[in-house]
Amino acid sequence: MTGENAIHEIDLNCDAGESFGHWPMGDDTALIPLVMSVNIACGAHAGDPLVMRRTLLLAKEHSIAVGAHPGYPDLHGFGRRVIPLSPDEVEAWTLAQLGALDAMARGAGVVLRHVKPHGALYNTAADDDTQAAAVVNAVCAFNPDLTLVARAGSRMVTVAREAGLRVAEEAFIDRGYDNAGRLLPRSHPTALINDPEAAADRAVTLLQAGTLAADDGAILHLHPQTLCVHGDTNGAAAIASAVRAALTAAGIALRPLHELAH
Amino acid sequence: MTGENAIHEIDLNCDAGESFGHWPMGDDTALIPLVMSVNIACGAHAGDPLVMRRTLLLAKEHSIAVGAHPGYPDLHGFGRRVIPLSPDEVEAWTLAQLGALDAMARGAGVVLRHVKPHGALYNTAADDDTQAAAVVNAVCAFNPDLTLVARAGSRMVTVAREAGLRVAEEAFIDRGYDNAGRLLPRSHPTALINDPEAAADRAVTLLQAGTLAADDGAILHLHPQTLCVHGDTNGAAAIASAVRAALTAAGIALRPLHELAH
Amino acid sequence: MTGENAIHEIDLNCDAGESFGHWPMGDDTALIPLVMSVNIACGAHAGDPLVMRRTLLLAKEHSIAVGAHPGYPDLHGFGRRVIPLSPDEVEAWTLAQLGALDAMARGAGVVLRHVKPHGALYNTAADDDTQAAAVVNAVCAFNPDLTLVARAGSRMVTVAREAGLRVAEEAFIDRGYDNAGRLLPRSHPTALINDPEAAADRAVTLLQAGTLAADDGAILHLHPQTLCVHGDTNGAAAIASAVRAALTAAGIALRPLHELAH
Amino acid sequence: MTGENAIHEIDLNCDAGESFGHWPMGDDTALIPLVMSVNIACGAHAGDPLVMRRTLLLAKEHSIAVGAHPGYPDLHGFGRRVIPLSPDEVEAWTLAQLGALDAMARGAGVVLRHVKPHGALYNTAADDDTQAAAVVNAVCAFNPDLTLVARAGSRMVTVAREAGLRVAEEAFIDRGYDNAGRLLPRSHPTALINDPEAAADRAVTLLQAGTLAADDGAILHLHPQTLCVHGDTNGAAAIASAVRAALTAAGIALRPLHELAH
Repeated sequence: MTGENAIHEIDLNCDAGESFGHWPMGDDTALIPLVMSVNIACGAHAGDPLVMRRTLLLAKEHSIAVGAHPGYPDLHGFGRRVIPLSPDEVEAWTLAQLGALDAMARGAGVVLRHVKPHGALYNTAADDDTQAAAVVNAVCAFNPDLTLVARAGSRMVTVAREAGLRVAEEAFIDRGYDNAGRLLPRSHPTALINDPEAAADRAVTLLQAGTLAADDGAILHLHPQTLCVHGDTNGAAAIASAVRAALTAAGIALRPLHELAH
Repeated sequence: MTGENAIHEIDLNCDAGESFGHWPMGDDTALIPLVMSVNIACGAHAGDPLVMRRTLLLAKEHSIAVGAHPGYPDLHGFGRRVIPLSPDEVEAWTLAQLGALDAMARGAGVVLRHVKPHGALYNTAADDDTQAAAVVNAVCAFNPDLTLVARAGSRMVTVAREAGLRVAEEAFIDRGYDNAGRLLPRSHPTALINDPEAAADRAVTLLQAGTLAADDGAILHLHPQTLCVHGDTNGAAAIASAVRAALTAAGIALRPLHELAH
Repeated sequence: MTGENAIHEIDLNCDAGESFGHWPMGDDTALIPLVMSVNIACGAHAGDPLVMRRTLLLAKEHSIAVGAHPGYPDLHGFGRRVIPLSPDEVEAWTLAQLGALDAMARGAGVVLRHVKPHGALYNTAADDDTQAAAVVNAVCAFNPDLTLVARAGSRMVTVAREAGLRVAEEAFIDRGYDNAGRLLPRSHPTALINDPEAAADRAVTLLQAGTLAADDGAILHLHPQTLCVHGDTNGAAAIASAVRAALTAAGIALRPLHELAH
Repeated sequence: MTGENAIHEIDLNCDAGESFGHWPMGDDTALIPLVMSVNIACGAHAGDPLVMRRTLLLAKEHSIAVGAHPGYPDLHGFGRRVIPLSPDEVEAWTLAQLGALDAMARGAGVVLRHVKPHGALYNTAADDDTQAAAVVNAVCAFNPDLTLVARAGSRMVTVAREAGLRVAEEAFIDRGYDNAGRLLPRSHPTALINDPEAAADRAVTLLQAGTLAADDGAILHLHPQTLCVHGDTNGAAAIASAVRAALTAAGIALRPLHELAH
């Protein structure tokens, strides 16, 4: 059932480039060709210059749009712990990460299109205006033409739009939500949705009806321009394939986020 | 005595931004106003995004030209140990560092003018064509308008010029040389020249006669466009002041290296 | 005026070994000979194996008792940021740090006597029973004969004593307190007491009367066995000297904490 | 054919605990139960306190003897790059790593039995007496009852025995050798022996005849007390199983190295 809020085109994004030195992470080779936009770690919570380059070239080979995925400078915690940084520190660390990845992109002959904060920084900036402003200021200072990916309905969406940035609201089809529109913590029993069909159904319902069920049954109203598939979810490639097939069957077009009408 | 090879204008450069987190290093506040160009650490061997920003703003306040000072990714060794990286790795790490500092410069409203490799990377690239080419490739990919600072007479000068880069040859007035034109290792008894008058005399002689005495008395013929004062030499500011005064008295103009005739 | 709670012997401790690689921190050479016990960083928030060894040998030369100063694994934040570790993680990181320093002590021919958590870990463990228990478990597992230094009157004192550890309650003569007995944050205008006479007066009053004035004038009742002088306070050595002189003049004996009657 | 030099009992060892933070490495769960002794990374080139504890408990569960696997402090290079450390630095870093792992072992209720340097440190110490002495000094200072595992026939065997340490000479059944008894670099086409039967045959021949064929056909004479299976070789568990079966079929007893007759 397609309502008047139905969404007819959508981006599909995944995180990638999260290996470090000799330690591999995720199956970028399988996942990247299945999405429209890829968020690449910038060396602070994961990744390094060699991993960045390899990931950029992989995206380029498949003509997938690339963006930066900056996180807290916390390799050991993989960017999933809240590091108590001041807004000034968040801005500086985000800016340096954008620059590092952009330089690698320049070397690889590709153009950065978007920015999506990672992990704990994504969550903190979604709820806290001063942390959101720190990320937004970094993006504006670096390149105001970049699209910022933010949790659908979050404070960061508002803060970024007020600063004049183009924003892509993001929904998660492989993660459970609480009734405030936040992702359930990974330790929560229904936090991770590993079944491809369940994820695909969530995606189609969300885009046709503009709603998503929270873990307590509450109905969230979201208007995403991009859907995330986590590279580290088990079977991420299977999820992405199922979602692509279901969206196509439902007549919803897949486009990289920088090409979506806004 | 001024010969036909006498040099009439010269840049004076120093390394800066080598603090890390809570650990201070060098006296940037005293030294930066005394030079014409400052090389700022990029977070791999020293520095971090906050230190970069602070250093960039300090240089901006005094209208000193800024450049990048990339090094081996070796915080513990302060970039003074040779880390056995492949040329591909050197290129990638250099590129990422250029990008990080450039982004911080963009945020601070200043423009990067030059690149000078740090420590062991500087020395390795001076003597080894493949390592030099790795650094040169990174600079070319990032921004071919940057001037590359290289040890006067070294292989890196040749490799960079062949690649079309503008090169500033550099001499050291606070460090002893061996008869092959290499800096004496810091452990050598005459490696560090801490006396301001001795350094100033070396500077004037070098620019007027185009020669510098090696530690064994051999005469080196050098044609530098820039002289380095090390920020971590004891009394670096006193050395810089003495050199400025002596050069001015000798009628040699001080100019930032990107403004020198080449 | 000396009351019935007057304290007749006391330890004086300082943090040391907080340099890292090429970055110096503090003036250990001046400060260590002035205290009775020294807390040595263990490589997680500061220090490294070479710094540990150098600091241990310096303490040995002056016959100063040595202990471990473990902190959060957060070099960039110098252990002053709360890193959200689980109790299991705190226990594991504390244990590994005790082991590393103890091995260096074995190599230097000295015996560890005590443990004092550093910075944010000290504060977190002072107020939170589960974090305190994590530190206490690590000490018990490693060597239950070590004395644990904890903020006077804090929860960690209680948790450690219940676990059977010998505890030295600690007061700070160079830092302001709030009326709950917590150190004022370093950003607070009266957080740091840099005047040697003021610190010395605080020390004598505290030991004779068992009281210390909080920043709002409230009277705190404390019964310390050790007083801390921060190595990174300006003029730390002058403070330590003034405090030693004032204590001696007041007839209070200075003893290393492992030799105090408990 | 069993000669007079035939070896009748042998240890089988593997490296483990080489994960880091969120990055897994190797299949410790499969491999550890198949060996007699396990070498656990100590946090400098790989591992962290949580990984150490997890690995120690896994070894304890299967009653496998544990030892320390210290390496260069080079997380990004995984300890496989030669970091130019002075002998003093090697000694200090080795000592701190032994202490860290030993503390975790104490917490896990197990006793360290041996030490085996990792990667580039293993190779450097095998060929260079001063580097070997640095490792040996660290082991002697920490606990002279530990057995040192060293490349069969290497200088480190001699240096360690002269210092009074018990040494287990080690041979590699999953790696090719050059005719000087050194491991072929991993980049060499025949460096890695991934076929379980080939590795098992090498093991039996080596123990019965005391010989191993180098890559150029030269015959190496080795008298190992322990054989290594690399955890990161593809199919490490299959290799270990095949070798165990072949050794048992040949009547050679498997014992942890600290229980071997020396």
